[in-house]
Amino acid sequence: MKTKKIAIIGASGYSGEELVRLLLNHPHVELVAVTSRQNAGQTLAQVFPKFASHPKSKALRFTEPNAERLAKQADVVFLALPHGVAAEYAVPLLDAGCLVIDLSADFRLKSAEIYKEFYAHDHPAPDLLKKSVYGLPEIYRAEIKKALLVASPGCYPTSILLPVIPLLKAGLIKSSCIIADSLSGVSGAGRKAELDYLFVECNESVRPYAVPKHRHLSEIEEQLSLAAGEKVAIQFTPHLIPVNRGILTTLYLAPEKHFANAAEMEALSKKISAAYQKAYGQEPFVRLLEGKNLPDTKNVNGTNVIEIAWRLDPRTGRLIVMSAEDNLIKGASGQAVQSLNLLCGFPETAGLV
Amino acid sequence: MKTKKIAIIGASGYSGEELVRLLLNHPHVELVAVTSRQNAGQTLAQVFPKFASHPKSKALRFTEPNAERLAKQADVVFLALPHGVAAEYAVPLLDAGCLVIDLSADFRLKSAEIYKEFYAHDHPAPDLLKKSVYGLPEIYRAEIKKALLVASPGCYPTSILLPVIPLLKAGLIKSSCIIADSLSGVSGAGRKAELDYLFVECNESVRPYAVPKHRHLSEIEEQLSLAAGEKVAIQFTPHLIPVNRGILTTLYLAPEKHFANAAEMEALSKKISAAYQKAYGQEPFVRLLEGKNLPDTKNVNGTNVIEIAWRLDPRTGRLIVMSAEDNLIKGASGQAVQSLNLLCGFPETAGLV
Amino acid sequence: MKTKKIAIIGASGYSGEELVRLLLNHPHVELVAVTSRQNAGQTLAQVFPKFASHPKSKALRFTEPNAERLAKQADVVFLALPHGVAAEYAVPLLDAGCLVIDLSADFRLKSAEIYKEFYAHDHPAPDLLKKSVYGLPEIYRAEIKKALLVASPGCYPTSILLPVIPLLKAGLIKSSCIIADSLSGVSGAGRKAELDYLFVECNESVRPYAVPKHRHLSEIEEQLSLAAGEKVAIQFTPHLIPVNRGILTTLYLAPEKHFANAAEMEALSKKISAAYQKAYGQEPFVRLLEGKNLPDTKNVNGTNVIEIAWRLDPRTGRLIVMSAEDNLIKGASGQAVQSLNLLCGFPETAGLV
Amino acid sequence: MKTKKIAIIGASGYSGEELVRLLLNHPHVELVAVTSRQNAGQTLAQVFPKFASHPKSKALRFTEPNAERLAKQADVVFLALPHGVAAEYAVPLLDAGCLVIDLSADFRLKSAEIYKEFYAHDHPAPDLLKKSVYGLPEIYRAEIKKALLVASPGCYPTSILLPVIPLLKAGLIKSSCIIADSLSGVSGAGRKAELDYLFVECNESVRPYAVPKHRHLSEIEEQLSLAAGEKVAIQFTPHLIPVNRGILTTLYLAPEKHFANAAEMEALSKKISAAYQKAYGQEPFVRLLEGKNLPDTKNVNGTNVIEIAWRLDPRTGRLIVMSAEDNLIKGASGQAVQSLNLLCGFPETAGLV
Repeated sequence: MKTKKIAIIGASGYSGEELVRLLLNHPHVELVAVTSRQNAGQTLAQVFPKFASHPKSKALRFTEPNAERLAKQADVVFLALPHGVAAEYAVPLLDAGCLVIDLSADFRLKSAEIYKEFYAHDHPAPDLLKKSVYGLPEIYRAEIKKALLVASPGCYPTSILLPVIPLLKAGLIKSSCIIADSLSGVSGAGRKAELDYLFVECNESVRPYAVPKHRHLSEIEEQLSLAAGEKVAIQFTPHLIPVNRGILTTLYLAPEKHFANAAEMEALSKKISAAYQKAYGQEPFVRLLEGKNLPDTKNVNGTNVIEIAWRLDPRTGRLIVMSAEDNLIKGASGQAVQSLNLLCGFPETAGLV
Repeated sequence: MKTKKIAIIGASGYSGEELVRLLLNHPHVELVAVTSRQNAGQTLAQVFPKFASHPKSKALRFTEPNAERLAKQADVVFLALPHGVAAEYAVPLLDAGCLVIDLSADFRLKSAEIYKEFYAHDHPAPDLLKKSVYGLPEIYRAEIKKALLVASPGCYPTSILLPVIPLLKAGLIKSSCIIADSLSGVSGAGRKAELDYLFVECNESVRPYAVPKHRHLSEIEEQLSLAAGEKVAIQFTPHLIPVNRGILTTLYLAPEKHFANAAEMEALSKKISAAYQKAYGQEPFVRLLEGKNLPDTKNVNGTNVIEIAWRLDPRTGRLIVMSAEDNLIKGASGQAVQSLNLLCGFPETAGLV
Repeated sequence: MKTKKIAIIGASGYSGEELVRLLLNHPHVELVAVTSRQNAGQTLAQVFPKFASHPKSKALRFTEPNAERLAKQADVVFLALPHGVAAEYAVPLLDAGCLVIDLSADFRLKSAEIYKEFYAHDHPAPDLLKKSVYGLPEIYRAEIKKALLVASPGCYPTSILLPVIPLLKAGLIKSSCIIADSLSGVSGAGRKAELDYLFVECNESVRPYAVPKHRHLSEIEEQLSLAAGEKVAIQFTPHLIPVNRGILTTLYLAPEKHFANAAEMEALSKKISAAYQKAYGQEPFVRLLEGKNLPDTKNVNGTNVIEIAWRLDPRTGRLIVMSAEDNLIKGASGQAVQSLNLLCGFPETAGLV
Repeated sequence: MKTKKIAIIGASGYSGEELVRLLLNHPHVELVAVTSRQNAGQTLAQVFPKFASHPKSKALRFTEPNAERLAKQADVVFLALPHGVAAEYAVPLLDAGCLVIDLSADFRLKSAEIYKEFYAHDHPAPDLLKKSVYGLPEIYRAEIKKALLVASPGCYPTSILLPVIPLLKAGLIKSSCIIADSLSGVSGAGRKAELDYLFVECNESVRPYAVPKHRHLSEIEEQLSLAAGEKVAIQFTPHLIPVNRGILTTLYLAPEKHFANAAEMEALSKKISAAYQKAYGQEPFVRLLEGKNLPDTKNVNGTNVIEIAWRLDPRTGRLIVMSAEDNLIKGASGQAVQSLNLLCGFPETAGLV
């Protein structure tokens, strides 16, 4: 299998760091460039002491980001940049023939208007929105394989879309009654020197934020609408909890058909189970929990796996679905590498198990 | 003000320990007895080194629980025992003329059948169910003042009932569409030597449990039904998060009347605000958050305060209400002391600020 | 007892916040002013939601620091400012007749040269060094009572000086062989927006820092030299651990006289025990642990108590002494209030239990 | 390379779980048996949900431990059992021709008397003490390659021996003045349902324990004595800190020759540097930190690497050496796999990077 040359623009945040880790250990790629304005000139080993035992860590130095130069060095470029900034690198890189995998929100939406509504500035490259593929491999595998520009999903969206899409597609739930309650580790806020994310402000603290309109709603709703075949608006409440990593999402859903007794509940259970089996029974990175097991972030942290479990509640008629993922891996960098594998024709699990 | 003599049966768990702390520093009571089978014979200072600087801590020794003896020593007895056990002490203590404040689930329900459904054994003293008063001072202040037996509420119920009851009473929300998503610190599980609650099993972990039928549903639904004037069933999902203390509850509610535009939303906002102001505007232990503030457990930990904030979501038509409390104080021992103050005619905030 | 009017300059850091909490609840003082450049204009309730239930929190607003105005308002002024800045307020406040309690390092040393060596700038008011009293009440009680300017000790120094000074004064240990290994919670680093103190950088991490020459060495060694009657240099290694609060110090000491057998060890034990009893047997805020108990920060957090325990090791001949304190209370603001009580003639424990 | 068949006796503790993880992903071994009395009959996936995505996890079931049967199944057997129990399996397994790697303390000492002194019972198989090899690959690589029975070192000993042995061998420090102050994550206490290790008891807590005579002293001192060529007794204080994983050890050492000025200090620095370079310059799992870097457990957690840094203190004449390791990997299971690789002729880093 031919080795691909990879560059990462913006490699000093938490997602970037995780990308570096995954790509340093990936069997079919060579990491040839990492950029970071504030760390330019330093080696990987200096910026990330934890990688210092890797043979490449002392040879590879951070550089200033320069799309022209990177385009000559790399076959595939990852963008781990803030929204609004990614686009300015994507355009020249694509023009120069690179494949681009963007971890920001810049190319996740199809609508430049919705982008503006949620991100409060004009989209910097609206023409690219049509060309980009939403990088959720379990849903868009075929499209990702042929993509030039992959928009890797957000961490919250992944934890919501993977559990909900199969139910919507199977017509098992009402698209008008979706509530997602999510708990995220602090790395989700990025490596930013802000008071709100100091240890003392987060430890022994739990708090909701961005209620009721978090930016990730835009891509969640667009993707759910595509799955449902109709416009979907959902309720979404993110909370910050004192763990480094992990997102736990609890979904409150309304079955399309009311179940009135144990037999109807049993029948619905079989349909839900079948829908999940069909969607994910063979997926290497989706773990459908059985028996009494419920998701727990500690069982997925450090992996590209999302856990999903569900319960019907005969007292209320609702369907409760719960998911757990590592926000930096399945919710960010691992999923991006999964897309890389598809793009490049590598085994989908390469570098991820 | 005449000092009251107080005993605590079962003082070695986390709620018991917190009761000891509050009562040692209470201006109008004398803690005369603490019991604990496993610690009998030891002083308070030996069992709880953190209290060793208090003058009483070396004089007061844990004893075996003995209702007859305690009835002679104390005016008021707190029971901090597992459900099913509390009743066997409550009966003789009440007979002997003591006032009893029970922190277990034994006397919180009016129905012995529902008790059996949720606690899986017959109620040990069903006659007392009619006599007990549910110890939520903001709702049952008048009744608590005259009570002989106070059933102090559970931690999750407090975090749900206080935000929801005023809305139900004011007819502002549908009683059929209540969803409560709660996050609890590990002290809520009690001081029990179980693998599930080891540091390593809880740290860097988040997990739902008891889905979809947690025991606390029984008292939550009974109290909400009383407030609504009709039978209420709710959705409730508890999660365990890695903090020592604190419960954060996010409630998803449906306004009784749909709001169709900004003006209607504004009108509904005023009604919600008025309902909360009326219910809690003068309450010393309910903090209605203003402006952009959202509840955060770190702002209530160590206090008897519950924080409440709410948002209407024009995109979905829902009302989101959030609360934060210290599960061991407003959710357990602090609230029980608040009831003690009412029972004994002390200022309601005595020993709690 | 006449109420004193108090101002705090620099009340928005962690020590300042803790001072606010203690002084709001102090029975003999009135908090009349709090300053903070970045929070000027906001109420206490806005800056610290956790204090919002206190009646004063909505009336008291942060102002810009202005020594002249504060001198008119307050009898006693606390300075909770960075080193180098405190002096510029201390001088005019003292001139205007205020008593000043400084929590910074500015007035802890007697030598302006050593100040310059450790703090890398000239001392801003060297004349005041002679007038200031080192605010360790257990050691300098008489001097504090008469002081105009109290230099409240650092958190690490308190955890080292209180255990070591009685041993030096009694001639029981060699002053040349003192090693202090300290572990501090992250609040010790202050409320600063720096990457090093982000939740994700501190959680699941332990690290030494400032090895081998931490700034606090200057005041530790000056105080130990005074106690020993000769120049003392010690080894000191601070570590950052993922807790909000608490310092645990382990001291490795060499007995002045070698003990060769069990009888000599027993004799030395009695002398050590007697030295500690004499020094601290009646101290309200020093807890000498007995039996098998060892210090644990969770037993002192939230209190002004320091725990001390010790062991002689017959295998090595060393004396191991361990202490635990809340770095923000006994290590900072609580101790400063203890000095306030002495200065003002209040009971020494007022507002601290 | 011929695949080896591996069994683990006692695979349900934290070290056992980590061994399972490493061996499931090891390129040259097949995990054929795992035993656990309490989990017998369950699959790996049931006991450890986090491994459920591995193809073997649903096929491999825990069995009761049976040396005879395991000897037929496996080429190499790991014992992850409590001390005193490991020996009863080691003897029959060795007799049956298996290679044995023991993670307990049973075969780490050469002296049955010292074993009895520290472990409070007679050694169960004293004859084996001469045959076993102490499994510290950086020190005993040649011996491990030929061993039949490897006694894998304890977590604290690894963190102390690797930094100290090169200095002793080079004659650079006094063997009579070694102080080791260690901080360990809670997984070091094992997966035991004890109150002391509950989340609430460990979180926001730091505490020393087993002062002054922890069991690990026995193997530390035996190995240091071998390195020094004379009997060595050291000071060792372990502390429990609220992290899942990681040991940070700070060593206080006395240079053999006093350095009196900057030139002598520079000369000694070069010798220390040379000693470490000679010992570990080519070691894949020892990271000698450079420049201003100090060890941090977050940089080694999840890896088999130990970080080492050192500082000479011109003020005291001491040498401070600091190390960080993952207590479950380099301190336990990773190191045992490193020994496996040596025993079986695999590349030493196989399955560990």
